Amino acid sequence: MANFKGHALPGTFFLIGGLWWAVKYSLYYATRKNRNLGCLASKAVLRRLEIFEGSVMLSFSLIGMLAEQFVPDGPQLRLYDYGSHKWDHLMNWQHATMYLFFGLAGATSLAVHLTDIAPQALDRMLLGIALFIEGRHCSYKVLSMLPNAVSAFSHGTPTISVGFLFLYHLHGRDMLDVHVHQLLLYATFGGALTTFLEIFHRGNILLELLRATLATLQGTWFWQIGFVLYPPAGMAEWNLSDHNNMTFITMCYCWHFCFSLFAIAGVYGIVSWVVRSRLKRTPTMEMGLLKTMEREQESEDEL
Amino acid sequence: MANFKGHALPGTFFLIGGLWWAVKYSLYYATRKNRNLGCLASKAVLRRLEIFEGSVMLSFSLIGMLAEQFVPDGPQLRLYDYGSHKWDHLMNWQHATMYLFFGLAGATSLAVHLTDIAPQALDRMLLGIALFIEGRHCSYKVLSMLPNAVSAFSHGTPTISVGFLFLYHLHGRDMLDVHVHQLLLYATFGGALTTFLEIFHRGNILLELLRATLATLQGTWFWQIGFVLYPPAGMAEWNLSDHNNMTFITMCYCWHFCFSLFAIAGVYGIVSWVVRSRLKRTPTMEMGLLKTMEREQESEDEL
Amino acid sequence: MANFKGHALPGTFFLIGGLWWAVKYSLYYATRKNRNLGCLASKAVLRRLEIFEGSVMLSFSLIGMLAEQFVPDGPQLRLYDYGSHKWDHLMNWQHATMYLFFGLAGATSLAVHLTDIAPQALDRMLLGIALFIEGRHCSYKVLSMLPNAVSAFSHGTPTISVGFLFLYHLHGRDMLDVHVHQLLLYATFGGALTTFLEIFHRGNILLELLRATLATLQGTWFWQIGFVLYPPAGMAEWNLSDHNNMTFITMCYCWHFCFSLFAIAGVYGIVSWVVRSRLKRTPTMEMGLLKTMEREQESEDEL
Amino acid sequence: MANFKGHALPGTFFLIGGLWWAVKYSLYYATRKNRNLGCLASKAVLRRLEIFEGSVMLSFSLIGMLAEQFVPDGPQLRLYDYGSHKWDHLMNWQHATMYLFFGLAGATSLAVHLTDIAPQALDRMLLGIALFIEGRHCSYKVLSMLPNAVSAFSHGTPTISVGFLFLYHLHGRDMLDVHVHQLLLYATFGGALTTFLEIFHRGNILLELLRATLATLQGTWFWQIGFVLYPPAGMAEWNLSDHNNMTFITMCYCWHFCFSLFAIAGVYGIVSWVVRSRLKRTPTMEMGLLKTMEREQESEDEL
Repeated sequence: MANFKGHALPGTFFLIGGLWWAVKYSLYYATRKNRNLGCLASKAVLRRLEIFEGSVMLSFSLIGMLAEQFVPDGPQLRLYDYGSHKWDHLMNWQHATMYLFFGLAGATSLAVHLTDIAPQALDRMLLGIALFIEGRHCSYKVLSMLPNAVSAFSHGTPTISVGFLFLYHLHGRDMLDVHVHQLLLYATFGGALTTFLEIFHRGNILLELLRATLATLQGTWFWQIGFVLYPPAGMAEWNLSDHNNMTFITMCYCWHFCFSLFAIAGVYGIVSWVVRSRLKRTPTMEMGLLKTMEREQESEDEL
Repeated sequence: MANFKGHALPGTFFLIGGLWWAVKYSLYYATRKNRNLGCLASKAVLRRLEIFEGSVMLSFSLIGMLAEQFVPDGPQLRLYDYGSHKWDHLMNWQHATMYLFFGLAGATSLAVHLTDIAPQALDRMLLGIALFIEGRHCSYKVLSMLPNAVSAFSHGTPTISVGFLFLYHLHGRDMLDVHVHQLLLYATFGGALTTFLEIFHRGNILLELLRATLATLQGTWFWQIGFVLYPPAGMAEWNLSDHNNMTFITMCYCWHFCFSLFAIAGVYGIVSWVVRSRLKRTPTMEMGLLKTMEREQESEDEL
Repeated sequence: MANFKGHALPGTFFLIGGLWWAVKYSLYYATRKNRNLGCLASKAVLRRLEIFEGSVMLSFSLIGMLAEQFVPDGPQLRLYDYGSHKWDHLMNWQHATMYLFFGLAGATSLAVHLTDIAPQALDRMLLGIALFIEGRHCSYKVLSMLPNAVSAFSHGTPTISVGFLFLYHLHGRDMLDVHVHQLLLYATFGGALTTFLEIFHRGNILLELLRATLATLQGTWFWQIGFVLYPPAGMAEWNLSDHNNMTFITMCYCWHFCFSLFAIAGVYGIVSWVVRSRLKRTPTMEMGLLKTMEREQESEDEL
Repeated sequence: MANFKGHALPGTFFLIGGLWWAVKYSLYYATRKNRNLGCLASKAVLRRLEIFEGSVMLSFSLIGMLAEQFVPDGPQLRLYDYGSHKWDHLMNWQHATMYLFFGLAGATSLAVHLTDIAPQALDRMLLGIALFIEGRHCSYKVLSMLPNAVSAFSHGTPTISVGFLFLYHLHGRDMLDVHVHQLLLYATFGGALTTFLEIFHRGNILLELLRATLATLQGTWFWQIGFVLYPPAGMAEWNLSDHNNMTFITMCYCWHFCFSLFAIAGVYGIVSWVVRSRLKRTPTMEMGLLKTMEREQESEDEL
């Protein structure tokens, strides 16, 4: 879905997901620090949050998969066109595959928090795999764009895309297109790396907030890509082969990152403040009773 | 052995190995979680499993080395042809070298679990080295294929293969050939990295299951390579220079990964369920006696 | 600001910063090792040092941002020139963006040490991000220089800059220019990596001193770049396309690194010696009283 | 010193160093496991071993630096030839710089084990830096060889050397020369990485033995390079542009690695066996006395 909507939709999902994670982990961290407010966000409540998150992720992925298959110009579950002996609607199938892995991550999250059979950090591993596969798909897309750009280039000199240092020998229309997708890779692979690190450093608030930041960054950047490549009617077109635009868009990415950092910091601050102010109002005696109830619950969880 | 069998055989080995690891580590994890069933899978039993695994790996490697040397068109231990002043059957020697390192890993596993002289995680280090050398051989093979492809290319522009981001300027027959082997590298180097991480995070069930998953993925992918490059009689030939086929095969790799995840999850679930159901049937009193015996054994092991 | 001053100024900042870090962390380490001299550098004193550092970093960044905007030939907060339909003074905006992230790191440091709401290692994460963005900007600048160099090259063969292994096919004036900036990347990305590692290994004196060393190296190297590319009047010009100069400058970088190591080692030695000699002169009894006061303070901090 | 001796000498140093490390760390590990033989290899003895190692490394480096400067055709401390306005004997200066960093590592080892002022793992950090700089010099040398090779190549297509995946478009004499040096990089950078990891996992016997293995591998490979590129009189010349030779030499590298593994395993086995057999012969009572003496020493060390 190479149009404005096709970038705005995943952007919205990632934006919501990033902010949601910021709320969840801030709440979790604040309650860990202030142990004596079991009533506000006990382990049982947090488990329910996780189950809610897993269900939402799973259902969104299912909807996404079905949408990619059954949109009017979709493949309708047909993969091979026996008439023309060609693969059919491969792009929709690719997107459905990506959704499939996010769906797996959601299902794993449910399995981890509903049953006690799956090992603890398994949900992070699957989420990391899903982000890695998204990043790979995105980088593959960038690379498959390059030959066209190159063939338009006078001497047939190849453009080489290596790690995250990229050469910009690209000429013509594709230059900015490739560049905005390459910038996206920082957020995607950065998120995958952060999530994998969480397997070994579970409960590290910094990694959790960094993941939330990078998800938010991905979200806003998807919107930016939509505006740059497919400007809605009435907005100025971008000159996709202007080198200055490329320099600007690189800087713009830093501002998006800066905005994401502020957004997550704001959410963290508000949640921390709410938890504290509620803590002060709760009478101490009543809490004593709640605490004993909670403690049993928690010691069960920890076993 | 660039034919169907030459890919199906290692594929079968890796497939069996991956599923075996899934069984072993699930069993180990389930018994660690349910400490009070020493009789089912004590440390002594697990040690015997490890010794069995090491012996199988060692003997398979020996058989592999001998087969590579003494097949009808093999080198019969001759490395240099003094007649033509050329190296003789280098490919067989390379494969034998790879088997050698897997053999070393098997022998190390035996040394670690039979004697008490070798340090604990040494078997993982050797396994990681063996996988790394397999990956290197594979990537070297990919790279040695490139010049041919490039020389067929009009302007002499080189094709660059960097990290895991690859450019697809390849034209002609080799394109898909190179691509399916490059995809294999994810599983190989991913497995090597996972195994090296296990040196520092020994007993981490997630790393162990991820290793099993990547081994299974390698196994099924070797079969896929066989079917794509050397389709058995009666099956449709693949158009090796069709760009759509390359896109499809990339997606197909994700499905193989997905299948491997399900297979390992299935094995894990079955083993966990069997351990639990056995646990319930074992009378508690009898177990008390067994536990004291086991505990002595284990405390010896841990020293 | 592509002139001598434009390199000397950040050089001076990094040089001061590196030496300051060496003093701070040596002091911190020496007092941790000699617990019984609370009066010299208690946690309260160290917190004040951190707050001072954060304020200086924040104010320097603000000054830098304002300077980049309001220098005579600066953009004066104007980003887009509606007359010529072009981005305006993009380089100044880029530099201001870099200052912005160092400012964020300073502000975070203040937030961490003034309030008790922000998680502990957050200042390191922001500092790592700021260094990473500086390195990215620097590598992007290097890459944007390449096309010019390449277009001057006979066959249009691209120059490839990959990770930290670089090919030197560059001809003409830019060769040394690109090379000295590439060498800078070791210090920048090395510093970013070190700082990120400190998130997981907080208080590791080796990482802290390595960070100080790499900051000092960056500082002296910025000065070296200034002298090489924009030699002040009266000094010999460098032949920017001589291959021998490039070999020399690579070796020179090692000497700068060696000098930085000696400088940090010297600072560490002096601080350790001062702390020890003061320790001996302090009467033990008086200290006993101070210690009890300090201990309360510290146990509060640790909570 | 691009001749047979110039490769045989560092080869011998690394070979001796690797085997020495194997002896030292095996001894250390064996005595840690068998705590009750303090008399054989106490911490005091091990400290003396470290000091001996540091002194040898420092003096060898000094000799190396002096030799590079004062060999008949050396620079005699002259860096710039004011007559021809050229840098003088840059290669000797480069080698002296490399020796300098190994000398620093030796001096640091002395500082760590003679005084109690330097932090513990500092010697590993400096050793890691020295190996990293050696690797960088080596990779730089490989890259500076490439343009010559490329200019001999018909279409001016560049050869790209990326990470450790290399393309072999090189034609003519340099192909094997570049390849054998590239293979060396595995051992060098692998050793640097292992040494850096030891900062965080100090005393991990596997990392220590891996470092010893990689040093031994470097040693034997330096000899191999000497034999391939500068065959002594009477030996067959290698055809440096034969692709089969390159395939063979890659496999040969695996055999060197295999040999190194066996050598280190042999040393480890012998040391373990000697320590055990001595342990059995030592009367228990006498040891009781020695142990108390040792224990005090050790508790001092640990503080």
